[in-house]
Amino acid sequence: MSTLFVRTLREDPVDAEVPSHRLLVRAGYIRRVASGGFAWLPLGLRVLRNIERVVREEMDGIGAQEVHFPALLSREPYEASGRWSDYGDSVFRLKDRRGADHLLAPTHEELFTLLVKDLYSSYKDLPLWLYQIQTKFRDEARPRAGLLRGREFVMKDSYSFDVDDAGLAASYERHRAAYLRIFDRLGLEYVVVSAMSGAMGGSRSEEFIAPSPTGEDTFVRSPGGYAANVEAVTTPAPDPVPYDDAPAARVVDTPDTPTIDTLVAVANADFPLPDRLWSPADTLKNLVLLLTHPDGGEEPLVVGLPGDRDVDLRRLAAHVEPATARPFADADFAAYPALVKGYVGPQALGAGSESGLRYLVDPRVAPGTRWLTGANKPGRHVVDLVCGRDFAPDGTIEAAEIRAGDPAPDGSGSLELARGIEIGHIFQLGRRYAEVFDLQVLDERGKRVVVTMGSYGIGVSRAVAAIAESTHDDVGLCWPAIVAPADVHLLVAGKDEQARTAADGLAEELTAARYVVLYDDRPRVSAGVKFADAELLGMPLIVTVGRRIADGVVELRVRLTGERIDLPPGDVLARVRELTGPRVPGP
Amino acid sequence: MSTLFVRTLREDPVDAEVPSHRLLVRAGYIRRVASGGFAWLPLGLRVLRNIERVVREEMDGIGAQEVHFPALLSREPYEASGRWSDYGDSVFRLKDRRGADHLLAPTHEELFTLLVKDLYSSYKDLPLWLYQIQTKFRDEARPRAGLLRGREFVMKDSYSFDVDDAGLAASYERHRAAYLRIFDRLGLEYVVVSAMSGAMGGSRSEEFIAPSPTGEDTFVRSPGGYAANVEAVTTPAPDPVPYDDAPAARVVDTPDTPTIDTLVAVANADFPLPDRLWSPADTLKNLVLLLTHPDGGEEPLVVGLPGDRDVDLRRLAAHVEPATARPFADADFAAYPALVKGYVGPQALGAGSESGLRYLVDPRVAPGTRWLTGANKPGRHVVDLVCGRDFAPDGTIEAAEIRAGDPAPDGSGSLELARGIEIGHIFQLGRRYAEVFDLQVLDERGKRVVVTMGSYGIGVSRAVAAIAESTHDDVGLCWPAIVAPADVHLLVAGKDEQARTAADGLAEELTAARYVVLYDDRPRVSAGVKFADAELLGMPLIVTVGRRIADGVVELRVRLTGERIDLPPGDVLARVRELTGPRVPGP
Repeated sequence: MSTLFVRTLREDPVDAEVPSHRLLVRAGYIRRVASGGFAWLPLGLRVLRNIERVVREEMDGIGAQEVHFPALLSREPYEASGRWSDYGDSVFRLKDRRGADHLLAPTHEELFTLLVKDLYSSYKDLPLWLYQIQTKFRDEARPRAGLLRGREFVMKDSYSFDVDDAGLAASYERHRAAYLRIFDRLGLEYVVVSAMSGAMGGSRSEEFIAPSPTGEDTFVRSPGGYAANVEAVTTPAPDPVPYDDAPAARVVDTPDTPTIDTLVAVANADFPLPDRLWSPADTLKNLVLLLTHPDGGEEPLVVGLPGDRDVDLRRLAAHVEPATARPFADADFAAYPALVKGYVGPQALGAGSESGLRYLVDPRVAPGTRWLTGANKPGRHVVDLVCGRDFAPDGTIEAAEIRAGDPAPDGSGSLELARGIEIGHIFQLGRRYAEVFDLQVLDERGKRVVVTMGSYGIGVSRAVAAIAESTHDDVGLCWPAIVAPADVHLLVAGKDEQARTAADGLAEELTAARYVVLYDDRPRVSAGVKFADAELLGMPLIVTVGRRIADGVVELRVRLTGERIDLPPGDVLARVRELTGPRVPGP
Repeated sequence: MSTLFVRTLREDPVDAEVPSHRLLVRAGYIRRVASGGFAWLPLGLRVLRNIERVVREEMDGIGAQEVHFPALLSREPYEASGRWSDYGDSVFRLKDRRGADHLLAPTHEELFTLLVKDLYSSYKDLPLWLYQIQTKFRDEARPRAGLLRGREFVMKDSYSFDVDDAGLAASYERHRAAYLRIFDRLGLEYVVVSAMSGAMGGSRSEEFIAPSPTGEDTFVRSPGGYAANVEAVTTPAPDPVPYDDAPAARVVDTPDTPTIDTLVAVANADFPLPDRLWSPADTLKNLVLLLTHPDGGEEPLVVGLPGDRDVDLRRLAAHVEPATARPFADADFAAYPALVKGYVGPQALGAGSESGLRYLVDPRVAPGTRWLTGANKPGRHVVDLVCGRDFAPDGTIEAAEIRAGDPAPDGSGSLELARGIEIGHIFQLGRRYAEVFDLQVLDERGKRVVVTMGSYGIGVSRAVAAIAESTHDDVGLCWPAIVAPADVHLLVAGKDEQARTAADGLAEELTAARYVVLYDDRPRVSAGVKFADAELLGMPLIVTVGRRIADGVVELRVRLTGERIDLPPGDVLARVRELTGPRVPGP
């Protein structure tokens, strides 16, 4: 500690929003040097490398082979795949001295596909699993939360190549099993949630989420074991409702009802229901959006959903991808006279309507359901409008917000909402990229077949923060042994010459046994400061050599449990071995 | 080999100019994926990682501490140091989504200075040595020669921080010694050459160059041990020549003498010397340049040198840095009527002349030397113009080309010119960056002093190519054991079942003993192809198990020497241990 490049801080950094950011900076693991960019100081770098080592061991363990690609790539392959434009503002683009377009690659599907096409040509070469641990760049709109959302970060990305769907399924399972082992070994609590497989290609996709109140990702889970990210949750569609006895739809005057609440109030006052009160869930609200496609083309889309639900823009975005959506502005309405702002109703919508405007509804808007909704005339609504009788949606869309208590789609109970940090994502890409780049191999019968791919990511630098989030306590960091920068934090308390000599001896003995020792040998620092630093820095074991060395006693403290053990210095190594296991230090 | 992601190529890649590029691509170590950008395939990545390990061990060994900075940095610190503009086109610049300027850092002096300022404040904290092994980006005008000059590459850069000059000298020596150990361990032949310390700050600078006919750097050496890069060579100035008996300068008609050769011919015809012929070395040619300073300011500079020497633009550039220089164009002459194109003479030049134009001369243009040179009038030259009598240069400049046979500046003999690959550079930066960023510490007496710095670089990915250049032979790569991707290349020749079983056993035995084995187990590949691949791939030891296994014999071959040893399979491990030494495999 007297020479280690580290300074602990008593004060929280002003820009730190989450505990991991606060503590990693205060403990001298990382230091902000740019917006969304951090320098790794020696202790932080060791944690990062320890995580990399575990990831590498497990990837090698399933037979994946490590390669390494440049980060700076030319536009062409990303243009071919469509991602040059799909990524929008979130990718860093630049021109070289000749004016050629480049990007800092966010992931490398295109390049891996091209590389395999370059080298391989037969089913005998497959399956193939390649990975890299590499620095990625992303132009985040709002870099935040330290390592959790930065502009430059370390990722492990791997890609599988198979000759058929069964092979892809097996490759996917193999990666999934490796991911379970990796996160188990890292001591991370995590949930595997179903994820969207994206608008193009692929069939199965899961995220690994470390539950954390500071996480940016919201996911759901049910008592029966269903788990999904919010984008992927599907809404169980109610059975069709018979509507033979339904009264005919009728238009009603509803002046001054700009909101669902005012509409419900007017309905209850002017045309009350016989058996109950009107509620927002009886209304069908229609949100008009403008979709922009990657090629720049625009089209309106109307989304209908029960009036007691809001649209969740992230869910909506995930389902219209790669297009983007924004609500109609007043000026947009002018171009579509069929759409009466504030009174849009489904009778004017859908492929079969006069307007022909695309109309997608929430799955709760099932055939036979009756609605109070807009009548396409200012100040007027319509009652008893029956889905399937009076209007015909073009399909359904999962755009409504998910609420705690909603039923799980698999019938496994009510959903609970939780926040977490996405630390891994596995994804059956299918043939999307192989088709774009014409990656084919000869199969057993000599026939050319398109290869099917999977992609698998782990946020390695983000895992540093995720582990810190899930393991820290009030006084500091608290690393699992496998990722800790050192096994033992050894400190001399006081100026006692005998204590210093004994501690020197312990440092030597533990180091000779291949344990990594962080030795606080600072001569002019008080015992109190040293204790506080040891707790802040968070090594799993803290050995204190103080005045009681005169009685042949030192203290070993387990950082996680707070357990304190008094023991003679001669027993320390054996006790460390017992608590840590034999250890080959990391790089 | 049956599952390894590698394909060897029989044909040289069309764009490969140098052996390392050709062989690394043919042997499947690297693959071009962008202009100046290569993917590292599994074998290549192992070599890179092995070199990194050696570098890391030696840097840790001198007490340097590893950190890691982002590559993407904001403009401000580089603006403050002047490097944002100094780097010209060779740095990649980009804007983020908010329009803020960033660069992909070529090196990190600015950031290291700021980080140390951020954390440290006392002389007690120093000396401090920090390093990183990091991906660098450079917008090369002409990426070439594979890994030797790419746009994205791996570098180790370290920085020393000391309180005074003696400390800097000691830090420099420590790094120098570590560099010698690193390059020795890597099995690289190298020369340590004096280098320019640059226009700003710093005093001592050396480059480590691996001699190679394909290298881009030219350096000189003498039999007596002098070595320098061409930019740093100094020209011994002749003693002043007495000129009391020199005739007065006289202007002569020299029509149609646009070149030195035509001038010499006219001189020999029209005003011959009594005792010998005029030669180009008797003429003084004056090259007019336009200097552009980093702030955009321009000024002319005239360089005078003996007519038998050309200006070496790289030497010139190194001595006018950070300004850049280009020869005057016709249009430039128009603005300076004192300069008569083709007949520029020193009488019109220098601070004391009427024009006041800056005039620097080659050191050979010593006081008392007499010259045939321009008379500042069209078609006219002047004879017997004496330096110090008839004209007064403003100083000297090292801009003339160096030729084999020139004397070493330290009197150690005649210079030989050689080419090589720069693999390391150590450099006393001095206080330049510390002054820009106000990095001060309190010294022993409590006085604030500016820190002095050194910077030290190793081209890690370039070293892969440099080692390949210096060790390959006609048939392939030939790695030193310490960097080889595997210790042993084991191959089964033929389809013999007994051979296969014996080879499987050897692979297991060697692996259990922690040797890395590249096992060519491909069942349908001929022995000839396997032999050729083994030689191309270049592992230090090749073990062949073939038909002679029936007689209890396998062959061990040393790739470097070609030595072949027949031995029973049971002796292979002992022989490998003897030839390789006990080995802990790399990451």
